Amino acid sequence: MRNGPDGHLWHGPMELALAQARAAAAAGEVPVGAVLVDGATGAVLARAANATIARSDATAHAELLAMQAAAPARGGRLDGCDLYVTLEPCAMCAGAIAWMRIRRLYFGAEDEKGGAVMHGPRFFDQPTCHWRPEIYGGIGADPAADLLRSFFRNRR
Amino acid sequence: MRNGPDGHLWHGPMELALAQARAAAAAGEVPVGAVLVDGATGAVLARAANATIARSDATAHAELLAMQAAAPARGGRLDGCDLYVTLEPCAMCAGAIAWMRIRRLYFGAEDEKGGAVMHGPRFFDQPTCHWRPEIYGGIGADPAADLLRSFFRNRR
Repeated sequence: MRNGPDGHLWHGPMELALAQARAAAAAGEVPVGAVLVDGATGAVLARAANATIARSDATAHAELLAMQAAAPARGGRLDGCDLYVTLEPCAMCAGAIAWMRIRRLYFGAEDEKGGAVMHGPRFFDQPTCHWRPEIYGGIGADPAADLLRSFFRNRR
Repeated sequence: MRNGPDGHLWHGPMELALAQARAAAAAGEVPVGAVLVDGATGAVLARAANATIARSDATAHAELLAMQAAAPARGGRLDGCDLYVTLEPCAMCAGAIAWMRIRRLYFGAEDEKGGAVMHGPRFFDQPTCHWRPEIYGGIGADPAADLLRSFFRNRR
């Protein structure tokens, strides 16, 4: 338990997201995990692991699955909710985060190749972006990156 | 029935996508429709209408639903498939198109506010984009735009 670079506490949810990433690795999936939290109460609304193989669906990213699981009970959007994900989201997931109106995005490792927050399209910095969450990167980045490195090393 | 700007025939699938958009409008949804076709056989693999209200899920865009419906039967990705959608895809859907490895993207009306193909992040033109379909815009653009204009006019 420690503070993120912004001073917010982040201990619990990112640990849970890392546990999801570890479960993904154990299942042979690219190890990324996500947790969705009600920003007002701190309640965990959904947790998900990357499941592109299990679901036979290339779009089954952890953060998209977590958001889609929680949205129906809250009227289709996730206003006031915070998303914790172990890897910088791609364009698809960044777009979904905006549609869902996520309040705060906490992510772990940066993704130079596929990330769309700090890299590539930098989606939330575009003038046409209609919703920008508060963004806190590098939260739990080391264990998240270690998981990914280990996973891809074992695949070679 | 006529040729698209590239010479490809497009009559059938975009008409089906427009029918989906009309069904969406009749259901009170933002009128966007999508059809997924096997590029080799021309078989329609999935058709979907925007369903953000019906599913209570802000990410339930027509093209994402069509791709997610068809992917499991083809191993999780849609190599060799063509997607017809009545409106320029947003960043979320453009990202999903890349993950799915769609062969050709045909879209109708341009979306200056939310589109991510010709506008905003111009996702497929980013150096980090790992998959770029052939892209044909403006196919059936007039009826698609008319549907959207009529829908939003009636909402005011």
